[in-house]
Parts: sequence; C-alpha cells; structure tokens
Amino acid sequence: MINKTNASREPAGHAPAGAGSYPQFPNSRKIYLEGRQPGVRVPCREITLHDTRQLGGAVRENEPVRVYDTSGAWSDPAFHGNAAQGLPSLRGEWIAARSDTAAYAGRAARPADAGDWPTAPAGTVSGAAREFQRTRRPLRAVGHPVTQLWYARQGIITPEMEFIAIRENMKLQTRAADVEMRADGARDSLRRQHAGQDWGACIPASITPEFVRDEVARGRAIIPANVNHPELEPMIIGRNFLVKINANIGNSAVTSSIEQEVEKMRWATYWGADTVMDLSTGMHIHATREWILRNSPVPIGTVPIYQALEKVGGRAEDLTWELYRDTLIEQAEQGVDYFTIHAGVLRRFIPLTARRMTGIVSRGGAILAKWCLAHQRENFLYTHWDEICEIMAAYDVSFSIGDGLRPGSVADANDEAQFGELQVQGELVQRAWARQVQTICEGPGHVPLHLIHENMRKQLEWCHEAPFYTLGPLTTDIAPGYDHITSGIGAALIGWYGTAMLCYVTPKEHLGLPNRDDVREGVVTYKIAAHAADLAKGHPAAQYRDNALSQARFEFRWEDQFNLSLDPLKARAFHDETLPADGAKSAHFCSMCGPNFCSMKLSEDVRQCALHTAAQSDVK
Amino acid sequence: MINKTNASREPAGHAPAGAGSYPQFPNSRKIYLEGRQPGVRVPCREITLHDTRQLGGAVRENEPVRVYDTSGAWSDPAFHGNAAQGLPSLRGEWIAARSDTAAYAGRAARPADAGDWPTAPAGTVSGAAREFQRTRRPLRAVGHPVTQLWYARQGIITPEMEFIAIRENMKLQTRAADVEMRADGARDSLRRQHAGQDWGACIPASITPEFVRDEVARGRAIIPANVNHPELEPMIIGRNFLVKINANIGNSAVTSSIEQEVEKMRWATYWGADTVMDLSTGMHIHATREWILRNSPVPIGTVPIYQALEKVGGRAEDLTWELYRDTLIEQAEQGVDYFTIHAGVLRRFIPLTARRMTGIVSRGGAILAKWCLAHQRENFLYTHWDEICEIMAAYDVSFSIGDGLRPGSVADANDEAQFGELQVQGELVQRAWARQVQTICEGPGHVPLHLIHENMRKQLEWCHEAPFYTLGPLTTDIAPGYDHITSGIGAALIGWYGTAMLCYVTPKEHLGLPNRDDVREGVVTYKIAAHAADLAKGHPAAQYRDNALSQARFEFRWEDQFNLSLDPLKARAFHDETLPADGAKSAHFCSMCGPNFCSMKLSEDVRQCALHTAAQSDVK
Repeated sequence: MINKTNASREPAGHAPAGAGSYPQFPNSRKIYLEGRQPGVRVPCREITLHDTRQLGGAVRENEPVRVYDTSGAWSDPAFHGNAAQGLPSLRGEWIAARSDTAAYAGRAARPADAGDWPTAPAGTVSGAAREFQRTRRPLRAVGHPVTQLWYARQGIITPEMEFIAIRENMKLQTRAADVEMRADGARDSLRRQHAGQDWGACIPASITPEFVRDEVARGRAIIPANVNHPELEPMIIGRNFLVKINANIGNSAVTSSIEQEVEKMRWATYWGADTVMDLSTGMHIHATREWILRNSPVPIGTVPIYQALEKVGGRAEDLTWELYRDTLIEQAEQGVDYFTIHAGVLRRFIPLTARRMTGIVSRGGAILAKWCLAHQRENFLYTHWDEICEIMAAYDVSFSIGDGLRPGSVADANDEAQFGELQVQGELVQRAWARQVQTICEGPGHVPLHLIHENMRKQLEWCHEAPFYTLGPLTTDIAPGYDHITSGIGAALIGWYGTAMLCYVTPKEHLGLPNRDDVREGVVTYKIAAHAADLAKGHPAAQYRDNALSQARFEFRWEDQFNLSLDPLKARAFHDETLPADGAKSAHFCSMCGPNFCSMKLSEDVRQCALHTAAQSDVK
Repeated sequence: MINKTNASREPAGHAPAGAGSYPQFPNSRKIYLEGRQPGVRVPCREITLHDTRQLGGAVRENEPVRVYDTSGAWSDPAFHGNAAQGLPSLRGEWIAARSDTAAYAGRAARPADAGDWPTAPAGTVSGAAREFQRTRRPLRAVGHPVTQLWYARQGIITPEMEFIAIRENMKLQTRAADVEMRADGARDSLRRQHAGQDWGACIPASITPEFVRDEVARGRAIIPANVNHPELEPMIIGRNFLVKINANIGNSAVTSSIEQEVEKMRWATYWGADTVMDLSTGMHIHATREWILRNSPVPIGTVPIYQALEKVGGRAEDLTWELYRDTLIEQAEQGVDYFTIHAGVLRRFIPLTARRMTGIVSRGGAILAKWCLAHQRENFLYTHWDEICEIMAAYDVSFSIGDGLRPGSVADANDEAQFGELQVQGELVQRAWARQVQTICEGPGHVPLHLIHENMRKQLEWCHEAPFYTLGPLTTDIAPGYDHITSGIGAALIGWYGTAMLCYVTPKEHLGLPNRDDVREGVVTYKIAAHAADLAKGHPAAQYRDNALSQARFEFRWEDQFNLSLDPLKARAFHDETLPADGAKSAHFCSMCGPNFCSMKLSEDVRQCALHTAAQSDVK
C-alpha cells in the first residue's frame, strides 16, 4: 500500500518547491499512501526519529511518525512547478471518468469583475492585474447533480472518498500492514489512548471508504470539491472525522496584493490549514481568486456577496438577484469549493439586533440587513434559495450557510436574533439536501464558556447534524491582540462538543490585517484547538503523536521532541535561546533545572529502582 | 468611600516608580478605595474613557472603568521608593495591633543557605551576593495561631478581609455610591451580565467582609499573608471569588541573577500576576528570596524542598527532617506566604509510576520518591505533617499541598498514582485545618479536555472544598513553544469548573527559562483564562469590562478599545502596524475592511433604520 519511490532512504528536510524562503521541517519526508482506485495517492509527512539508548547499552529503534499534510505538492521535492503554472490536476481524470460534466465556454468576463471601483476608473486597474493564464474551460454538470452527496446517495464510493479514508487513518490503522510489530513495551505504549467523550458522535475505530460515503450520504459530512478545482487534495468536514481548521486570507481596499495573498494561502497550508477562505474585497478580486485556486491544494471558500457589493460600488441597496447570481456562476466556474451565503438573515430578525451591544458584526449579515430595510422586502438569498441550489449542484459547490446575526460581543451571545437565524439555517439545510447540495452551517462568534454548549446542541438538533463551522468562539472581549487565544479556548471546547471545522482567528483580529507571523500563530493555535478536541472526542488517530512526543521528552531525545511538535522551528529556537550548543540537545537535562536537578532524570532513577523492587517482590 | 486625593483630575499614564523602562498604561490612574478599618486603602487602576459623539451631535460621557491592580505601590506616582529600600509595611500596624506576635532574633544564617554548592567552594559565592539590608526582626506567634483561618473562626473580620472584600467588588457594587446613575440606556447596558453556570459554587451578588470571613473560616478560601511579609496587599484564593493566577520565577544553576528575578516579579505583577512563586534552585537562593519578598506587593510562594536539596549537595537521599524543618523556619522568617509541600507522595504510590509514559515530572515529587526508595521509609513530610503545621500556624504560612505525582503527559492523566495522591491531599487538608493552617491543593498538569472535570470533581469531594490550584492543565503534548495556549485552554476550563488559582505556563515551558516577553505572554494568557472562567461562573464583577470594551469597539472609540484591553500596548501596536496615522484612531473603519465596507458602520445604519421603523410602529 505504501509508495515510497519518491522518498530517499535518508530522511531530509523538505521545503515547498520554488519557495526558498520557506523553513524546512527537519527529519521529515513526503510519502504517499496508495489506494485501490487509480490515482489515489494520499500525501503525508513522515517524521523520522532517533534511536533510544537504554540503560545497559541496548538500543531501541523508534518508528517514524506520520502526520496529516495539507501543504500539497509544494512540499514534494519531486515537484518542480511554479505559481504561474499552478498545481497539477490531481482530480481531473476522476472527474472525467464520471462522464457527467461537460466543458463550456463559460461566462464572459466583465470589467466590474475586478472590483476596482473605489480607486480607479472602470477597467483601468483590473487591466493592470496579472491574469493567470488558464488552460482549461469550465465544467458543469450534464444530466444529474455532480455533488459528492449525490454519488454517496447512489452508493458510489468516489476516489475522493477513498482518498479521505486513507488520509484520516494514516497514523494508525494502515500501520499494522506496514511495520512489523514487535513485543516491545515502549512501542506498544505509544498506541495507548484514553477513551473519549464524544457527546453522541459515532467515531469508528477505523475510517473506511464506506464509512466516508455513508457520512456524506447522511449529510453529516461534506467533501468540498468543485469540479473546476481539480488541483485540490480531497478532505472531509464532519463531526466523526478529525476536526479541521480554516484560515482566512484576502486583500482589502487598504492593503495587500495578489502575490501576498497567494503566498498567504501557501503559508497557511504549510502550517496546516485544511481549507482557506479568500475574503478579498479590494482590487483585482477576480484575478486574485484565480491565482489562489490554481495554486491551492486545499478547498477554497468565499463570500460571494463581497464581490457582488464591489460590483455595485459598495451600495448594498443596489444589489440585485441577477447580479448576485452572475457572481455565483463566475466564482463556480473558477472553482471555488464552498460559498458562505447569508440566507438566514430574515427581515423579521433585524429589529432584534437594534438593542444589542454590538449590532450586526458579520459583514454579509449587515449588507443583507441593509438591503432588506432599503427595499422593505425579504432577503433575496432566502427567496432564491432553490435557484442557488441548482447552481451549487451543477458544479459541486458546497454551502456554508452564513451566520449573519452572530454575536459580536459576549453580551450578545445566544440571543433571539442569533438563534432565530440558526433555526432558519436548519430549514435551508433540508432544502439544500433535497437538491443534492452538500452543506455546513456557520456559527459564532463571541460566546462565554458556559453558553458554548447550547450553541452546539441547538445546531445539531435544528440543523439535522449538518456539520458546524464556527469562528472561535471568543470567550471574552477584553484581550484584543490575543484573540487567537481568547478564541482558541472556545474553539477547543466547541470542537470537542462536535464542531467539525474551526475558523481561525489571528492575533490581529479586531485590529488589523494579519501578516505572515500572525497567520502562522493563528494556524498553529487552531491546530492545537482542533487536536485537543480530537483527543477529547477519542479520535483513534489522535493520541499517537502526543505519546511519541512525550516519550521523546522523557527520554531526552530533544531533536525528536522538536521535530514532532506542531512548530518544530519555534520549539528548537526557544530551546536554543538558553542552551545553543549542539551537545545540549543530547543532554539529560535542560535550562529550567540544570544538570543536577532534573525531575525527568530523577524519575528515571525512581523507575529503575521501582522496577527492581517490583522484580524482587515477584521473586518472593 | 473613595479617596482620590492622590489622583490628578487629568488622567495620565503611570509607570512603576524607579522603573523607567516600564511601559505606561495609557489614560490610567491609580486610585484607592478606603475601608472602615484604619489603613485599609485598596488600590485599583481607573481607566478614563472618551466621550461618545452620537448621531445628531449629542455627546455621551462614558464613566471610567476600574480594574484590579496587582502592581503595588510601584505604579503609584506618589511612591518614590526603590528596590534596596523595599515596599512600605502596609500590614505592619494591623499585625502589631493584634498583639499576638513577638519579634525575636531569628535563626542564625548558615553558609549552606545560599545554595551555591554546584559551582563554588562553600561560602565564597554567597559572600559575593548583595544582601538586602533588612531592618525588621522576624515575628512569630505568641499564645495562639496567627492565621487568618484562626481569626475567621473566632468571628474576627481582620483588616485583610475587609481589604479583600473591597478589592473583589471594585468594579460594580461600590460604584452606585460613587457615580450618579442616569437614565441612560447605553450606560445601563454596561451592567448587563449573563447568568453564570457555577457548578455548585456560591458566588454572592456582592462580596462583603463577612462573606470573606465565612469563606476563610470554612476553608473554602485562603488569604496567604505571612506576618513577616507585611508589604503585601491582601488577596484571596477561593472558588467564590475572582479566579487568580500565579507566575513562576526563579533562577537555576544555568542562568539568571538576583536583579533579573526581582525584575521578573515586578514585571509579572505589572501585567496582573496575583501571586508569584520563587522556584530558584541556583546560586544566592536566600538573598534572591529576600529581595523578592521585600519588593513584592503580592504573596510569594516557594517549594522549600528545592533549597533543602541544595543544602545537601543535590543528593536526595541525604535529606533529613531536621534540615528540612530548619529550611521551613528560614523561609517563614523571611516572609514566604505559602509553601508547596509534597507530603502526599507516599511510598505505596511510587511503583504505580514505573510504567507511566513520563514517570514523575514534578521535581518535588521525584526528590521525595527517591528519598523513600533510598531509605525504604515513608515520606518524611507525611510523617512530620503535624509538626509542619505548628510552624505554619506560628507565621501564617499557607499550605499549597503539592501534587508530586501529577501527570506529565496526556497519556498519564487521571491515573492511579495521581488520584491516590489526591486522596492523601484530602487527609492532609483536614489535619491542617485542625491545626488552624490555611490550605490549598495543587493539581495537574497534562490532562485532555474530557478528563479535566473529573479532576475538579474529585478534588472538591476528597479535599473538602479546599481551594484547587492547578498548573494549566495542558490539553495536548504536541505543541512545545505554544504551551501557554495548550494549557490556557485547560486553565480556562478548570477555572470555570471551580479551580481558584491557575499557575501560568509560558511559551518556553519544556524548552527553556522564560524571558520578559515570555512572562508577559504567559501572564496575559492566564488573565484571559481566569477572566473567561469568571464570566462563565457568573462572577458579578466580570462582564462589565467586556461590555465597556465592546461598546467602545462598536462606537469606533479605538483608543478606549486599546486602553480597556489586558495589553493596551500590544493592541495599539497591532492596530498601528496597518494604520499608523492618528486620524485612523477616530476613523469609523479599520484596515480589515476599509472605509466602504465596514459591518460595524453598516450595522449602525441598520440600527438607526430599525429604531426608526420600530418608532413608526409604536406610533401606529
């Protein structure tokens, strides 16, 4: 099952091709696990460990640890592409083999697509943007919906589903076939895992392709995968799988460029983002999205109302269904994998927000509310929902039903406006499912710890177990500059309760646009939250890495401790601030306690002594 | 009740006296709230806010916000002392007025007190340390125990208790007497607060001195306050009060100096540490502690076994009760407020750790385990517990009963060794209470999310509601370099469940000694965790600051948003990275969305429109 042909025998660091400035993850190599269906080659990163020198001189080999890898071909030394060429079309043959899509000319580009209205005469600035040289025509469905939900309901296990089953399992189950197990206590102990508390989820001991299919068919999980984004490596969002994280990028009228956004996408996936949302609102909005999509190994989400608003010069009241519909098609043809659509912001909820502490803080929510008030009509996204579903089904774009009335402060958490919209989300889920469209629901926001569980409970009940996708939530408002932490706390908790994907928050939240360091900090914080949730839910692939790292720590394998961490570069840099000498990385002490005062060392003495005592007792 | 004599009418920044390098908290001034008993002047920091310019031109004044201030006289512009003089003796007259202590010559200093054995001949290096010029002789009890627990049980409300009652309340209840309330919706809305979920705690609507006394008498809270540390500003640790945080400092044989440790203590309390533990193990251990105590406005805790071990050259098996007892007296005379004592590490638990993933990771636990194994005898801290209690009662040193067998990895969480020790902690609590000694219990460690509640539940039950004091817990092992976050998640959760004090973890945990930036990051992260817990428990003084900050955010009062945050300097710096111009701080937009795309602005339009619509409906 394991294809290691493109990995050298000697482990080595790897860096994204063509990105000289990317740090290398040490002792890591990219490997691929092959499936049964053609072209199913699932990437993962394998971290090679050092041997353990035991007391008495014996040497124990430590098996390498595999970790989920979201960075795509960019981290494969065998890949030599660049951003102008984009990533290879991994899914192209799978899509073609289904023979249910056809290429067509596509919608004609319009000057307003660029979204340059605030700063320049129409057409001039967009002309200056470097367009991605696209070689494929867009595809759309012929005959029946082409969603993974439709296939799942037909009983079809797609290559995407098999890919995902292998990807979710890679750390443990596929291992038995790969590594010869030995009667070795230390190795077995790495497989120890606490029984989880899963709040009613149904996480199996092993993820099979059939389980993936079944979860998608039930609507409990989605595989965001537009037929026009064949570059993506399939992933799944669902309560019975690993918790995923999303990173937001996007330029605004104030700052940022296309190159920066593509770079941010790659940087975010390098650190582990499972999906990326492009929230651009400024210049070159169409071209930026094209560059991102062609270079992204992960699903890309957008909020189409942002671009629609750009097309009408920022005047919410000028939005029309026709213009919005055209924008959906524009983005579906480009390959966007999921759309945030704020169809639950109904007219009757708007007055409920007037006495809130912080009104409506969702941009999409505020735009729609303004439109409803200006026209004294119901939200046009709600009234046109079924037509939107038809478009989604033709390209396999997934819904991420927006929460336009989410609370923007702990004071506003769990109020009538918020829960009113959540109930409407539930209605929209059922209507989407009836039209074969994959769907997740977005959630808050700002919620104090003790009100988080109510959000999850109501969402599961009212939205029929469609996956929940939350922003944080932030558990207090008093720490701008640290909102990755205020929200990471809430994210871990709601992830444990059952949220399938966590939208990251960076330290710059509420204050400014994140830079590279902020993206890294936000992604790693959310990898922590997601992993803490996986451990607590009892995901069978979760605890192995903790165990391997803890064992390395206890055995003073400093390099392994760094390399197994979510951020090996920072771990090593922090250690070396105090003890930079190479010798310190094999030393049986560290800077916290010094050579004569180490509890780990004392503990090893105790262990030897206790085992000796126990052995004596056994003899008696 | 309010004494503002030392505060100018114009708000101004304040910095610790004699510490030019300390950043100023903007628009803040130190004020004191006076109590009934002589000398009860409770510090707090008052943050002045800008007016709100409402649509239509009306101006609303925003009342200042008071926050708990742990920084002591150092942040009072009227204070002109320095580290060599130490802080004023705030509690000296209260202690003297009780007439139940007497000064005495004190224990004679010995060369081994310095703890310099690893690096220098006895006596030479300690001679080089700059000794603090102490002017007072030590005090100890005459006639009866002098603990706050003893007074509480006698029905006495000490000045310390009244001080604490005012300090816990300052944001809300004392306000009604101070500020003339107006019929102003925006102001009233700041007092809105969610009902909490307190897991069976008994948090009153207002903290009275009698409530403080009663909680101390029941053992549900402690006031760590050695009679030889009169410089401290009283604070309380208990489940029905604000959650507190501790910051660890301390040199080691590898690095650090006395000056650095004093500076770290002041830096930690500047950011909000409620207590500080001096975990020094290296050179000048006695002198370092003296400097810290004389300059600390917060209680200081230590782990006396660390110093005892230094005195026997690091050989655990050479420890004796007599030497340990002498160390307790040495430190009690200096004024240490609480001692971590690992008396629950019993012989029978030691073999239970032999097959753990990470053995014994508590330094104290490992030392005692080694001693037990070497001597084949029971832990001498356990066998001498009652004698230790007598010493504690004579100085009012509080117990922090150590958790020497806490898990060092998620794999080892909630195991037999850990819970065996926890049960013994419960027995020790009762024996301490019988001897009038204030007591808290230490807890883990590394615990996955779903196993945290069991820790709290068992501690409350087995330890008879004595306050719990936990290190984190870390909710995953895979993120060295980010363990302030892995543990901040667990800390928020266990704080909500009822833990009274959270021991901070810095980003350097497991990797190296924290520097200034790490201490700041660790303290702020734990202030977040503690505050998130307070909000969730429903502490009546908790949500006001969140509301004030959120209102400022919604009204685009950028300066107020920065100034109300836990770290105003970072919030402002992050904002200014993108929009440095002064004008941007009064702008009704920010860099995230730009001037034409702000949900907050849209939302204000919606609010006006909805209120208008509602008003029209009212007319009909």
